[in-house]
Amino acid sequence: MQEKVFEHLSSVFYPERVAVIGATDSPDRVGFNVFQSILEGGFTGRVYPVHPRHESILGQPVYKSIGEVPGPVDLAVICLNQHATVQAVESCGRLGVKGVLCHAGGYREMGDEGRELEMRLIATAQKYAMVLVGPNSLGLINNEGNFYSTFYPLQIPKGSVSLISQSGGMGLTIIHKALDEGMGINKFIGVGNCSTVGFADYLEYLGEDSGTSVIAVFMEGTADARRFALAAEKVAAKKPVVLLKAGRSPVSDYFTVTHTGSAAGSYRLYRDIFSQFGVYMADSAHDLVAACKGLSLLAPARSNRIGILTHTAGPSIVMADQLSEKGCVIPPLQESTISRVKEIIGEDPPVVLKNPLDAAGLGFARETFGWLAGAMLEDPGIDLLVAVYCLHKNWGLPSREIIEAQRQYGKPVVACYASHWEGCRDDRNILQNAGIPLYTTPEDACAAVAALVHHSKRGGRIRP
Amino acid sequence: MQEKVFEHLSSVFYPERVAVIGATDSPDRVGFNVFQSILEGGFTGRVYPVHPRHESILGQPVYKSIGEVPGPVDLAVICLNQHATVQAVESCGRLGVKGVLCHAGGYREMGDEGRELEMRLIATAQKYAMVLVGPNSLGLINNEGNFYSTFYPLQIPKGSVSLISQSGGMGLTIIHKALDEGMGINKFIGVGNCSTVGFADYLEYLGEDSGTSVIAVFMEGTADARRFALAAEKVAAKKPVVLLKAGRSPVSDYFTVTHTGSAAGSYRLYRDIFSQFGVYMADSAHDLVAACKGLSLLAPARSNRIGILTHTAGPSIVMADQLSEKGCVIPPLQESTISRVKEIIGEDPPVVLKNPLDAAGLGFARETFGWLAGAMLEDPGIDLLVAVYCLHKNWGLPSREIIEAQRQYGKPVVACYASHWEGCRDDRNILQNAGIPLYTTPEDACAAVAALVHHSKRGGRIRP
Repeated sequence: MQEKVFEHLSSVFYPERVAVIGATDSPDRVGFNVFQSILEGGFTGRVYPVHPRHESILGQPVYKSIGEVPGPVDLAVICLNQHATVQAVESCGRLGVKGVLCHAGGYREMGDEGRELEMRLIATAQKYAMVLVGPNSLGLINNEGNFYSTFYPLQIPKGSVSLISQSGGMGLTIIHKALDEGMGINKFIGVGNCSTVGFADYLEYLGEDSGTSVIAVFMEGTADARRFALAAEKVAAKKPVVLLKAGRSPVSDYFTVTHTGSAAGSYRLYRDIFSQFGVYMADSAHDLVAACKGLSLLAPARSNRIGILTHTAGPSIVMADQLSEKGCVIPPLQESTISRVKEIIGEDPPVVLKNPLDAAGLGFARETFGWLAGAMLEDPGIDLLVAVYCLHKNWGLPSREIIEAQRQYGKPVVACYASHWEGCRDDRNILQNAGIPLYTTPEDACAAVAALVHHSKRGGRIRP
Repeated sequence: MQEKVFEHLSSVFYPERVAVIGATDSPDRVGFNVFQSILEGGFTGRVYPVHPRHESILGQPVYKSIGEVPGPVDLAVICLNQHATVQAVESCGRLGVKGVLCHAGGYREMGDEGRELEMRLIATAQKYAMVLVGPNSLGLINNEGNFYSTFYPLQIPKGSVSLISQSGGMGLTIIHKALDEGMGINKFIGVGNCSTVGFADYLEYLGEDSGTSVIAVFMEGTADARRFALAAEKVAAKKPVVLLKAGRSPVSDYFTVTHTGSAAGSYRLYRDIFSQFGVYMADSAHDLVAACKGLSLLAPARSNRIGILTHTAGPSIVMADQLSEKGCVIPPLQESTISRVKEIIGEDPPVVLKNPLDAAGLGFARETFGWLAGAMLEDPGIDLLVAVYCLHKNWGLPSREIIEAQRQYGKPVVACYASHWEGCRDDRNILQNAGIPLYTTPEDACAAVAALVHHSKRGGRIRP
């Protein structure tokens, strides 16, 4: 990645002075929502609304043109139509604005005329060596500076997962799933048509970004899959990259070209190649969020040997099954562990002493569950433990016991509680604050484990 | 299905007089939780706690033995260990109790000794021609009579989906997902070891049950897959059957046998055969619940031709892609529809007039979205419409407009909103009360559409 691109993307993600060109007072319009989003998001820099006819918007004074904004502008967010956007970019260039974020669609995804307009847009940005985000972009979020520059005003908890999305709608789907899962977001970028800055640039930028520990990507298609794969390999050696790729069916090019102007390409080819280059390939939005949450909370596993402790066999069977499919091993318990388990629950317990260890026959003491978790974590053949429990009105959930066992042995632990969202919200916060991701289905827990094992192997292979 | 089995299963699901043998006052114990669950669930019949030493539990008088309970007992719920359970079943048989529900594990899943004990249990039940649910069962729920007989006390909204689960933990996982999705449950049965009543019996019973419109099944393995497939074919001609099957990896028999004593068998074989026999095969708990919710709310589709109207392209691309993979067709809009759309949004709209129809370029009027939904539903080439939108702070969600369009044209509609759970809860209730299932990811919406098309095709093939 060029120094220049990195520096300019820093201006985009960490601007100090932002102009919103086309800010307006109608809540129906993009220009209002972007301005409201930045203002109410708690942005720590300065924001200047620009509109030729308004005096004030949301109590803030409005500037007639970008030229009237005092001092240098780091980022201009352009909320105009596709034609006026090109002119605005020209004005910004002349004034030395470092970066522009263009929301308008109507470019190459709309046929030849739009393509020509997009070429003019690109030429203008290049003439002034400006970074151009979009066009056809939902916007961007940098939670580190409370910078919420999208036309969907929202607030999301801070975290270390950053998201690059070609689609605003899939970006929002993933962000809302993250809210449901209690997964914090660091940065979000809606890349749109990727006219001058591509997937690989954003990936490399986030690879260097200290606030980002995991990078999620939603991609429809890219003209430069080779550069993306090479960038991903470099980045994935440092931090996990999780990709959800559209375009599995042969007909999907037909759907994608008119969205962001990219053909989807062969899904299987993308999947296999990207996976070999270190990227973890997610199957769905659920899967992507489950994997990213796990990766952001868990330390790398030493290997792929998984222990499963459960209070109810079914989910552990689903898990052992799926993890075996995904290249994990569910090893037998070692003799020392079997002895330790017998010390805890007696010489002739109503439990089959194997992995998964199903403790249902033992009654429902949370304390015992915690001791058994410790015994399994002590097993030298187990690198990661999944602890499974069901929400119960009278018995509570063994979150503190699981946390204590994890602290004692230091290996990664994933929790899976059969529960509805509200029933486990407090426990989820307690567990996740302690670095233990909580899931409510065995499939989601598997996504986290599989992603962690994928990344750990990858790290293992690349590191000297 | 034998008349006798059907009649006896009716006594189990719709008992008037229930004895809880082994009811106790300690919240740690199964016997307390079952009794509390029945009592607080609002059961409309009579419930009699039985324990040799207690005087009263939760304010209710306790009977020393099952023999002391006044009048005939329809169902005895036995909360004793595996040995005492056999004796209790004998006592129940002698007293003419119609059915027994056995919670205890410790039978054939625990090796030869347990297997022998289970044979005695079966022989006893057969001697008295009693229906035996379990052993190793979580219990059962019949929401129609507020009969909550499990040791996980809970309350779930009434609906028309019934669930047969070999695993209590997976049963609870599915029930909690149903709570999250606003999907009502009619009946739940934890079948456990299926000693005398098997999957096929429960399936046939629910096939005849007027409260059940969709049957969900979680299966680890069954000794009689052939009978299940034949029963499923018969039932699936009347109402949808959705199956989540564990045991995809070659190692899974090792995990399942010690749970409920059944080997998992070849997943691919099960999947292909069951699917040919009319069962919709779900991939995960999410997928199962999404499919069942859709099937319970939607009328059958005439065919597999799907229209997608969206306010944001990405999710529609993911959907078109996945639906194409699952045997659906995303047909081009007919000329009449294109004319109709132009009447609504003008001759030269900033929208590509194809299916999926992406209305993002139109601004954000809910009214227009509703009109476009109507235009697509009017298209004679479209049998089902998926309507996609994103939660927005200022713009609201087009639920009433979607409902109105659906009512006008009468075809099934699925809604998909990019939103977190809380953000769309009210709209979800409004939509689902109007027969339009709402999902928050495109993949979940696809599960519903694919299941509906599977069932519609099936129904189409079988009907005269």
